Amino acid sequence: MEVAVLLFDNFETLDVYGPVEIFGRLDKYTIKFYSLKGGQIENQHGVSALTDKLANISNEPEVFLIPGGLGTRKEVENKALINKIKEISNISNYVLTVCTGSALLAKTGLLDNKIATSNKRAFAWVITNGANVLWNKTARWTVDGKFYTSAGVSAGMDMALGFLSDRHGIEFARQVAFEIEYNWIEDKTTVLEIIPKMQARLPKEES
Amino acid sequence: MEVAVLLFDNFETLDVYGPVEIFGRLDKYTIKFYSLKGGQIENQHGVSALTDKLANISNEPEVFLIPGGLGTRKEVENKALINKIKEISNISNYVLTVCTGSALLAKTGLLDNKIATSNKRAFAWVITNGANVLWNKTARWTVDGKFYTSAGVSAGMDMALGFLSDRHGIEFARQVAFEIEYNWIEDKTTVLEIIPKMQARLPKEES
Repeated sequence: MEVAVLLFDNFETLDVYGPVEIFGRLDKYTIKFYSLKGGQIENQHGVSALTDKLANISNEPEVFLIPGGLGTRKEVENKALINKIKEISNISNYVLTVCTGSALLAKTGLLDNKIATSNKRAFAWVITNGANVLWNKTARWTVDGKFYTSAGVSAGMDMALGFLSDRHGIEFARQVAFEIEYNWIEDKTTVLEIIPKMQARLPKEES
Repeated sequence: MEVAVLLFDNFETLDVYGPVEIFGRLDKYTIKFYSLKGGQIENQHGVSALTDKLANISNEPEVFLIPGGLGTRKEVENKALINKIKEISNISNYVLTVCTGSALLAKTGLLDNKIATSNKRAFAWVITNGANVLWNKTARWTVDGKFYTSAGVSAGMDMALGFLSDRHGIEFARQVAFEIEYNWIEDKTTVLEIIPKMQARLPKEES
């Protein structure tokens, strides 16, 4: 089953490679990287990645993964990309967004009247891209039909494991977490605030 | 300050991009990717990355990051690479290994009589690469002088944050963890077994 990963310049590193580590190690899934025009994509962390054109997606992906990152601020205005995201999302069995990737998906209209979340620190901006989305500001990740959306950066790994749990059972997902020695936050409703170590350093409401 | 990241074919995805997310977002650090011969490196997850030659490292890196992965099984026998790892480790201020990356570093002899750890599931193999290393089988990560070594895959992120804590203070490291919504395991002596959710699924001693 194909996991089609969308890249664009200035994507967030871990939004992509956290879920890629999780899906990539499973024989059931094959990762492929795409961008609107294909070729080498780069980000602000010095990361480069070779991609195929989105137009070359031939089979219906099992998963379409949309990361966030600084680049989303520019890409929400990229009509050709948003149209292509809509098209690929429609033919994919599941669509997973990480961090501000939900802003790109919201822009297509496909999240209208659906529950979604995003990076807590960019929330005020993200919601301007989808006035009719049922935004949940506290979840670690959300599931609404075929659409999974996660909170910021690291939450994408928890969501990817949650997706595996939904498809293949929780013990399967736990085994993957164990193999990568990952301390999985299993409950998608987990609010970062209730993690005691984090409690002291949460800032005031930003939006 | 440069973070020089070593890549080789079939490196482990998150070993690299977890720490890259953490260092890459800080203005103090600049990430550069290297391999023995330079050019495009690929791994078993379909990930590709463009690298410069290790021989082109001109300045003394602040951090030399050595990942693990399936490729280490082959690379421990690659004398040209091991010699180069020794050379770059000697000129770097700090050397950080993730997962089975400690097998590559052990092979240079630089870990002799030093404390180190590695992936718990590959431990029996790893220790054959360094008979004189003081292997610690339980730590999340270890620090001995300029050498930091972490347990498997995800532990590299905890170690990278631990490194930032040692250099810039724990509140600085906590802020980075907060920005990426990461549930940082702050204590390097943390044994995976004491994380309650994981307790039930730890296998019997493998080595």
